[in-house]
Amino acid sequence: MKIVGVDLGGTFVKIGLVNEKSGKILKKTTIETKVELGGKTVVKRIAEAITNLTNNDFYAVGIGSPGSIDKERGIVRFSPNFPDWHNFELAPKLSKLLNKNVYVENDANSFVLGEKWFGAGKGKKHIVALTLGTGVGGGVISHNILITGKDGIGAELGHVIINPNGPLCGCGNYGCLEAYASATAIVRMAKERRKKFPDSVIFKDEITAKNIFEAVKLNDRLAVIIRNEVVEALSIGITSFIHIFNPEVVIIGGGVSRAGEILFEPLRRRVEELVMPTFKGTYKIVQSPLVENAGILGAASIVLQREN
Amino acid sequence: MKIVGVDLGGTFVKIGLVNEKSGKILKKTTIETKVELGGKTVVKRIAEAITNLTNNDFYAVGIGSPGSIDKERGIVRFSPNFPDWHNFELAPKLSKLLNKNVYVENDANSFVLGEKWFGAGKGKKHIVALTLGTGVGGGVISHNILITGKDGIGAELGHVIINPNGPLCGCGNYGCLEAYASATAIVRMAKERRKKFPDSVIFKDEITAKNIFEAVKLNDRLAVIIRNEVVEALSIGITSFIHIFNPEVVIIGGGVSRAGEILFEPLRRRVEELVMPTFKGTYKIVQSPLVENAGILGAASIVLQREN
Repeated sequence: MKIVGVDLGGTFVKIGLVNEKSGKILKKTTIETKVELGGKTVVKRIAEAITNLTNNDFYAVGIGSPGSIDKERGIVRFSPNFPDWHNFELAPKLSKLLNKNVYVENDANSFVLGEKWFGAGKGKKHIVALTLGTGVGGGVISHNILITGKDGIGAELGHVIINPNGPLCGCGNYGCLEAYASATAIVRMAKERRKKFPDSVIFKDEITAKNIFEAVKLNDRLAVIIRNEVVEALSIGITSFIHIFNPEVVIIGGGVSRAGEILFEPLRRRVEELVMPTFKGTYKIVQSPLVENAGILGAASIVLQREN
Repeated sequence: MKIVGVDLGGTFVKIGLVNEKSGKILKKTTIETKVELGGKTVVKRIAEAITNLTNNDFYAVGIGSPGSIDKERGIVRFSPNFPDWHNFELAPKLSKLLNKNVYVENDANSFVLGEKWFGAGKGKKHIVALTLGTGVGGGVISHNILITGKDGIGAELGHVIINPNGPLCGCGNYGCLEAYASATAIVRMAKERRKKFPDSVIFKDEITAKNIFEAVKLNDRLAVIIRNEVVEALSIGITSFIHIFNPEVVIIGGGVSRAGEILFEPLRRRVEELVMPTFKGTYKIVQSPLVENAGILGAASIVLQREN
């Protein structure tokens, strides 16, 4: 059986036809979202792209969307990426156009579902997932259940406060995990220290999280300082998540995770220092293996989670 | 139907016969634990006390025990309160003596179950519970499931790090919630400041969390400072728990919670300031209504949770 995964972003929509058993992406396409055309047109364009891609040979669609989602009704309550959408009936509208079941989930939640069905969480019942991108998203599966809370807005792991004296977060609080471990935060950390480290190789090129982690490999002093701060912040947050959820695995994805071992090696070491004795050795910390397919596979797995 | 709740402590064992419908405690008794006599004798003494209290007119027993519990097998893996118990078969042994079903759960988890079945969490599916006592215990029900994690050791909300620059916690980390909001921490805060506030009324009597909160009512300057620090720490922790679990209610019990509105009023105000806009007004923060019966009712409700 084949399912369609729709990774809905503010700029691009990635659509993939997925084999539900193997998790193989059989075909995929990317279209521009064109939010400015209005929700109705966005949905119509997605429907057309799905039909063109699949010839209608699939049985259901999962959509991973940013924002606050009413999963029961398939509605986007609101989303910073789609300022004009208020209680927008995304799933019902697309379902009507395609005549198939359509399910929506918040994109951070769909990330953890993708890991459970096709990635590093396969066969596991206790998973904590973090996506380190523009922001820090969280998704949790505990006792095999997707933890979303009363209104479906929980698992905001990026807005767990790890240091009340820390930097201002986009949410208005100080010291959220997101204010340390998002790509945005990492770039900010570099810019703030430009005057102190004017010769850092970081400033020889575009200042991006990727370039900063590359500079760590060159032993650039500022880059190492920033990497260590990111590791320390992530370690504190992940230690708390381990104490709360006692998970089998902590999976980290998103652009920042591609730094690889230069991030993961010190992170694993520090978390194992910080967790309480009972928790030592009970968990693994791994990089998401889904890489650029995480969005589509996460979205597709919403269907599997709901229909199984 | 009647059930027995056993609140197993390091010094005393409280035993109650509970009406499972009303949550009324029909009879209760307290015996000394006498850990020094060894686990086998402790269990025998509990069995005798149950038989004497109930005349065997009950159908199952729930035990709330400190420590790390293997709930499937009814085993206390280990507990700081019972240093000689290693993988001690508490439930199987008691079950054999009484010829009834016996269930064990960690005492912080049994606290949240008690609230769900008989207290402020009645009919709710999303509950975060904290017990502020010698330590800070946590219990979470999310999507109607008791969140204990892969090995049953999760929900350690007292060991969520809320400030890495904070005071040393008993667990060896710095700035755990427990290092701010336990009775132990509150007493420590007073003692540390004795030289700065020698005239505080706190030092005119035994230094206890209870007396410190009483001194807040007298506008004692040091007492107010300590209360504010406890409120700030709890607010940060609870904000994170709300962002993670999106609960209907946050229930706070344990000795420190008896401070009442002098603690709860500023706590509610500060948490509502800190939570992200989406979460505002979505939760309640309440004092546990079970008071001194929380232990017995929590223990009894383990039976209800397992058999329902």
